[in-house]
Parts: sequence; C-alpha cells; structure tokens
Amino acid sequence: MVVPCDSKSSSAAVVAYYAAVWTYASASFDNHTDTIGPKSVRDWLIHLRRGEYSSLQSQIREALVSAILDRNLDQAEAIPSTRKMAKSLGVSRNTVVLAYQGLLDDGYLVARERSGYFVSDKALTEAAPTPRKGLAKITSETEGKTAAHWQKRLKLRPSANAFPSKPSDWQKYPYPFIYGQVDHNLFPLAEWRECTRQALGKKWLGTWTNDAWSVDDPLLVEQIRRRILPRRGIMASDEEILITLGAQNALYLLTTLLVDKSTHVAMENPGYPDMRNAFELHAGKVSSVPLDEFGMTIGDALDTCDIAFTTPSHQYPTTVTMSLERRMALLKKAREKDFLIIEDDYEFETNYVNEACPALKSLDDDGRVIYVGSLSKTLFPGLRLGFMVGPRALIAEARAMRRLMVRHPPNNNQRAAALFLSLGHHDTLIRRLHKAYRGRWETMARALNTYLPNASRSPSFGGTAYWVQGPTNLDSEKLAVAALERGIFIEPMGLAFSGEARPNAHFRLAFSSIDETRIEPGIKLLAETIGDLT
Amino acid sequence: MVVPCDSKSSSAAVVAYYAAVWTYASASFDNHTDTIGPKSVRDWLIHLRRGEYSSLQSQIREALVSAILDRNLDQAEAIPSTRKMAKSLGVSRNTVVLAYQGLLDDGYLVARERSGYFVSDKALTEAAPTPRKGLAKITSETEGKTAAHWQKRLKLRPSANAFPSKPSDWQKYPYPFIYGQVDHNLFPLAEWRECTRQALGKKWLGTWTNDAWSVDDPLLVEQIRRRILPRRGIMASDEEILITLGAQNALYLLTTLLVDKSTHVAMENPGYPDMRNAFELHAGKVSSVPLDEFGMTIGDALDTCDIAFTTPSHQYPTTVTMSLERRMALLKKAREKDFLIIEDDYEFETNYVNEACPALKSLDDDGRVIYVGSLSKTLFPGLRLGFMVGPRALIAEARAMRRLMVRHPPNNNQRAAALFLSLGHHDTLIRRLHKAYRGRWETMARALNTYLPNASRSPSFGGTAYWVQGPTNLDSEKLAVAALERGIFIEPMGLAFSGEARPNAHFRLAFSSIDETRIEPGIKLLAETIGDLT
Repeated sequence: MVVPCDSKSSSAAVVAYYAAVWTYASASFDNHTDTIGPKSVRDWLIHLRRGEYSSLQSQIREALVSAILDRNLDQAEAIPSTRKMAKSLGVSRNTVVLAYQGLLDDGYLVARERSGYFVSDKALTEAAPTPRKGLAKITSETEGKTAAHWQKRLKLRPSANAFPSKPSDWQKYPYPFIYGQVDHNLFPLAEWRECTRQALGKKWLGTWTNDAWSVDDPLLVEQIRRRILPRRGIMASDEEILITLGAQNALYLLTTLLVDKSTHVAMENPGYPDMRNAFELHAGKVSSVPLDEFGMTIGDALDTCDIAFTTPSHQYPTTVTMSLERRMALLKKAREKDFLIIEDDYEFETNYVNEACPALKSLDDDGRVIYVGSLSKTLFPGLRLGFMVGPRALIAEARAMRRLMVRHPPNNNQRAAALFLSLGHHDTLIRRLHKAYRGRWETMARALNTYLPNASRSPSFGGTAYWVQGPTNLDSEKLAVAALERGIFIEPMGLAFSGEARPNAHFRLAFSSIDETRIEPGIKLLAETIGDLT
Repeated sequence: MVVPCDSKSSSAAVVAYYAAVWTYASASFDNHTDTIGPKSVRDWLIHLRRGEYSSLQSQIREALVSAILDRNLDQAEAIPSTRKMAKSLGVSRNTVVLAYQGLLDDGYLVARERSGYFVSDKALTEAAPTPRKGLAKITSETEGKTAAHWQKRLKLRPSANAFPSKPSDWQKYPYPFIYGQVDHNLFPLAEWRECTRQALGKKWLGTWTNDAWSVDDPLLVEQIRRRILPRRGIMASDEEILITLGAQNALYLLTTLLVDKSTHVAMENPGYPDMRNAFELHAGKVSSVPLDEFGMTIGDALDTCDIAFTTPSHQYPTTVTMSLERRMALLKKAREKDFLIIEDDYEFETNYVNEACPALKSLDDDGRVIYVGSLSKTLFPGLRLGFMVGPRALIAEARAMRRLMVRHPPNNNQRAAALFLSLGHHDTLIRRLHKAYRGRWETMARALNTYLPNASRSPSFGGTAYWVQGPTNLDSEKLAVAALERGIFIEPMGLAFSGEARPNAHFRLAFSSIDETRIEPGIKLLAETIGDLT
C-alpha cells in the first residue's frame, strides 16, 4: 500500500489475522531529479504483495485510492509518472499504465498536459470528509456513560454462554486435530471458482442482485430435493424446504418459533453447546438426556418434554450413531407422549462401516420430526448454507421469521452452490472426502489402540472425529494447553456437558483437516503429553 | 438438459422464475446406424441454453450428471460418442470431449476399449438411492396430522405480519417505479466479478472457507471504519463495529437484545413495516410518533419510551430528512427522559440539495445512539451486508447473539465487498448513482408538478423515491392493480402505517431502477389511471 510512514497499524492487524506471507518491497521516490514528480521531498512506501490473490495492478490501484480518499496526497503535486513508478516498484510499465488508466476512467485522477497525473477535485468532493475537530472517539470519552445506558437494558446476555473459538492460524500446527474446518488439499477450489463465476452471469443479474425473501433459489431447492434428501430417504416438495444461513440459523429459527418460557426441551448430554445456549435463552426448562452406545436414551425427560433435540447420524460430540431400533423407539415415545423432534442430521455422509441409517424424518409417519441439514460439512462452513425440511405451514412461519432476522441467504452463494451440486462436483467431493476420511478414521483407531489403550472412546461408525475419555484425573483444558506447546491442537469438550459439574476428562480428536501421515506421530506425542500430566 | 421426455417439470419452474430467454435445441439420436451408441432406440432431449451464463461444456456436463444421478441412464448402454453428440447438438467436438473428460476424471464415466463411454458403478453407489416404496410424501399423507402437532405449539406467528413482496419480473414492465432493487445499467458488473475472483484466491482459502464468528473480515471492518463512517461524522474502533446480514439483521439483533414485554418502543408513523413487525413480536408496547416536514416529531410517546427508532437521513417511507435542529432536540429529549435511540441511517448517500446532515450518532455525546447502516442501497440487496456501530459491550452481546442466529455473514462476500471498497469501486459507484438519481429526482418532480399537481408529496432533499398522497378517495391498492395493467409498477404503502385504520391514499414512486426517459410518460399514464379511478 502507498501509505505515509506513520499509518501502518491497520494493515498489521490484517497481516496477523490472515497469517499470510506478505512480501514487502519498499521503494523510495527521490523527486529531486524528477520534474514531473512530487514538488516537495517525501517518501512513498509501497508494499507489493507478490501472491496470486491480488494482481499487482489491483494493488497499485488500491494503494492510490487509499491515499486519495484519506487525503494523503496533495492535489497540487503530480503523482509519480508511470515510468518512474514502474521502475521503483520493479513492475512492468504496462501494469502501472493500466492502473492509472482505470483511475482516470473512474475520475480519481486527471491528466494535465505536460504536467502528469493529479488527484481530481471530484474524487475529493465525494471522499470522506476530514473528521471535525472535537468529535469524540466513542470509546474514549463516552464508553463509561454509554455502558450504563445500555447494560441496564439488556434483556439477554448471550455472551455469557461460552462457545469455543478456534484459532485462525491452526494450519501452522503440525498436528491439527481440529474439527469442522476445510482440508485445503481436498477442497475443489477450481470447480468452486468456476461455479461462482457462472453464478454472476449477466443474464442472471436480476436474480442475484435483488432482494428475494419470499422464494429461495429454485435451482438450489431443486438440487436439495432431488440429490440430497433422497439419500436420507426423505421426499419433500419445494414448499417444505427452507434455505438457511447454515444449520445454526435453522435451529435458531425453530427455537424462536417453538420455544418460550412455557416450553420444556430435552436434549442429549453431552450435546451441541450452541443448541443448548439457544434453548436456555428461550425455554422454561432444558433437560439433559443421557447417551449410551445406541445414541440418545429413551430417558425420563422425554415423558414430559415438548420438544426433543437429537443428532442421530453422528451424535455431537460423541459421534455415536443412533441405531434403527432406538430411532423407532424414539418415534414411538414421541407419539405416546406427544412431543416434537428436531433432527439435526449431522455428518450423515460419513459412515464408513454400514449403509447410512435412514433419517428419523424418513421413518416418521406421524409428522413429528423437523429435519435440519447443512452444506457446511461437505462444502465449507464459511459459506453459511443449510436448510430445514418440515410441514408447509411451519416452513411458511420460518420464512417470515427469517425475513425479519436476515431477509434471506445471499443469492450469489445460493446460486453458486446450486451449480456446484448440479454439475456433480458435490457428489465427487463427497466421494473424495469419504475415501480420505475413512483412511484417517482407521489410522487413528490403530494409533489410539496402540498409544492410548486405556482411554475409552465411544463406538464409532464414522464421523470426522473420535471422542476420547482420558484418565479420570485428567484436566483436558490443561492438556490442550500442554499439547499446543508441542504443536498438537485438540479440543477439550467440557462445554458440551450441561450443568455446573462438567466432567473434564473428555476431548475431541478430529481428523477432517489433518494429513493421514501426521496422525500416528501426533497421537504418540499426545499420549506422552497425557503421561506427563497424569 | 439431457432429460427423458417426461421430466421437465422442475426446469419449467426455473424458467418461469428467472424469466430468462432459453434457446432450446433438441436432438434425437438414431442409434440404428451407430454401433457405439445406445443399444436400444431411445430419444434424447438436449436443451442447450445459448447464453453467456453457463458454458456449453458445463451444460453438457450438468445434463449428463443429472441423468446419471437420477438413474435415467442404463449402465449397460454406452452413451453417445463425442462425435455423435457434438454433431447432434451442433457444437464443436472439442466441447464434448472436454465435458466427457471431466466426467471420466471425476469417476462418473468409465471408458471401455472399443465400446465407448459408460456410467461407472462408483457414481451409482454414491448416488441418491431410489426412494423406497411406500415412503410417504410428507405433504400428501401426514400434512393434516403434522399441522395439528406444530400449529398448537407455535409461540410466534410472524407470517401474520404482512410485508410487501416484489415481483421478480419487474423488469418486464415499461414503467417500473420499484424501490430498492438494482438498476442493471448502473451496476459495475465487471468490477464486482473481479473482486469476487480475487476474494477466492488460494492464499486466502483459510480465510473464506472456515467458520469465523468471533471476528469479521478485518479488511471490510477497516473499510467501513475508514471510508464509510467518517462521511457520517462517526469515528469508531474495530470493536465497536459488527458486520451483519444486511441492516435488517442488525435491527433484529438489537430487538432481541433490548426489547421484551416490559419494553415501550416508539417509532415513526408511517415507518418501516418490518421494524414494526419485529418490535410487535417482542415489545410490550409499540407507540407511533407522527412526522412533520422536519422528520420525526418530539411527540408525547417519547416521554415514556425506552427505545426510539428513527430513519433520519431519509425517513422511511416519506423520504423526509430530519433537520439538524430536530436531531438536537431528539437527543436532548433522549437525555431528559432516559431513552435509547436506534438510528437506521437509511440512504444517507442520496442528498441532492445540501450537504448530508451529520448522523445522529455523530452528535451524540451521551452514548445513547446505536447506528445501523447497509451496503444494500449502493452495492446490491441480494448480497445481504450491513453493519451496526455501538458501544463495545453491546457489540460483544450482538456478536454472541449473531453466533446463535447465523454464526456470521458469509466470508466470501465479506471479502469481495472489502475489495470493492478498497479499490475505490464503491466510491465510483456512489458518484455514478448520485448523478443518475439526481437527474431522475428532478425529472420526476417536474412530471409530478405537471401531471399530478393536486397530489401532495412530502418535502424531499433526496432519496430514491417520492412519497405521494393521492386524492382522499383513492384506494392505492386498487390503483396499483390498475396501473400494473398499463405497465406501471407502483407501491401502495398502507402497510407502513400502524394500526387498523390505515390511510390508503399513499403510494411510493421510486426512481432507482427506472430509466430517466421513462419517468415523464410513466407519470403521465399514472395520472390518467388515477383520473379514471377517482
């Protein structure tokens, strides 16, 4: 960026966050010998990041726009000539000429004959005004007063509910047993880019630019209905499907619609923390239902609950698959005791032993199950696309609620995902993930048997993680810290348990983002770390 | 698409929705003379859409993937040779070869020597299973039962609150006085595409693919902080800014956090319907505050309210700009009566007469204002990007609530918008919109004076619409229907009023998507329509 020497703070933050490799090339313009250049001596600092993610031309443009709009360039001074700029930056002159031309076209620069390029009046008229003097930075002067006004009026304090935040730099650790992130070696980047390009076609401009809350992308709905739901044994019509901002959005919409202080909700324990957090903000009572090797038990809480929440495909976080017998028993209980079921059909694509068990929804003759699915686990979580399947009337209410909450999931992403599905890339990706995960799942099972023979783990037919219970005197939070020092990222999972006396010897070892060759040495080192701690 | 003749229903829906021009080319394969082709006589129907939005190669791939996954191709039959397929479709053979090669690479097809291409076993193993017999389509058998289970448990019925839904085919009307959609002639498609391409760079893969609720794209936050907020006189730190799924998401998050049955909320009347709808779902009392030519009045309701909602830049829907004196009076009242203010700084970029008035937030020394902004009006609404600015502690709560609701706005869009801002395209676009809108605003004022001299309209300094009050005996709903028959799209705005006795003579005439040359004849025709009705 072309910046004055003293304003580098914000880019530092960007660098830290992305942990990207930036190459700095600084150039200093000596304008004593340049009759066209700036009239007074000044230093220019230009950082060119030589990477594929942004062209050099774009970077030169960005730097100049930034300097113009921040009023760091004197209008009376010509900016360096293209020749001089190109030479100083060590880029081709053509690159600089194209960048300057774009700025001329867009009115940021004007060219004056025999004098060179200058910042235009027009650019500055519309630029951010210089902040008025005496304008308080909100934080410094009024933070105290402000806090007093707002805090007393907060009706909910969701920040009090903890949820694990994952480090953005996990890829730098040699043994990243991290859950739910994308393995960049498996993701079909070229295909996704091509789908994105097609989704932005000019003929579809009206489709992706406009507000469209009342109907979702029909191509995406069709793909979900025809490609994804039949694998789960579910037949649905378009009006029974709502596209959501990930599964989380579907779960929250259902919570808002169906849960209030008169509602008794039952959920698995351990279970998905942000489902419990959402329930606890809304429900009168949230009960915990224990698990066994067949999944959620038909516990007492189910006798009096209004809604039961379950993750039958691979229970979160234990990865236990609910057996068919248990599924039928749960549905029977729901009918007897008149409760509803929210099925989060979590990671159904990853069963390495048997055929996937049919979804609860597909076995439900009584219309008591609402189904929630996600594209995050196969596509990528940053995309935020999921869906729910339920009766028409409920979907209509959920759509109206979604309109108030977010209007709709961004259209460009709906269309890109629809193309990715319709071109078969999603099925190809599932096959690729299945093969890679299965190998890792077997390798990890062997490594756990060898190095951690006394740690118990839940029976698993698949998923993307193992749920491990260490020695009872193990503090998994401390283990995570000690392991990280040795380059191992693991997830302590006390937060998945309800209540205040949370067991702390459990942790999750995911294999969705770690190379298979790293698994065995990683588990060996982890076992040593556990040995050192206990 | 390559489809059997009887399965065209879903594409019909797609065609209807997008109102796109599809060119069908059907080809029939006669395989009697083809030893490599299918063994039995069958018709292939291939629709190639010759348009820029999807390459021919992609369309051939999509058609074959669809036929394979839907099990419409017999594994024992070879698919047509590339030569034959190319000839029948009238495309180059190379196009077909590349499509087939991609399907071979991805395991959908296998090539057998001297026999041609066949559907692979692998593709079918992982394909959607044929639905089991007897599997009930949810709608048909269980809809009645299902409705009984769910409806009695609904705690909220947001669908009861009406909100206007806009037709997706508005572009076909000659006089689209439609609000809040994108004028395709002004939108810089090439620049947006380039930003999208750059945002998907491989080096940033970790950034846009992963879940990242705890921090927003730092480049986008920086651009909002440095480029957008200073224009409104607002200085904020990164921790005081939250990126949201459009302004709507910001408003709903604030409603969830700050409003419950003990809360008294005051808002402008007429006002933004989906803000009133959200308040009415949550608040104990929602009061209406009248407007005058200076904006929201300092009415009685403000004496006892906890929160006031206002759209000072251009009041929704009347477009009245709140005067500086009124702003100061509102802030004074807030301090005296100890209430908070939610400022939806709606269309602040569009003031054609004066300098834009500083935001309420920038005048607020007492920390009582939370600011909500949007990129929908300048970029495009389908993108769903907005932001809120408030005290750190509140932003932290809003971030936690957003995590439960949607996790975060999709990363790829955050990054593309950040690049669009940082490269100066957003500023260029604002200048372009400002120029075009100003011309239309003046043209429409003249046309309204000429053809509807007796209709009153609110004083306007800008915005993208006029708010018109027709003769008192006018029913604007009926007018909208009659106008549409003449090719004029207008928006009756009874819904913007609170209460049951909604005045019905008002309507909104937007000029953000209509060509300037269409304005005068459109208003003339509308005036005639009004004359016919009253």
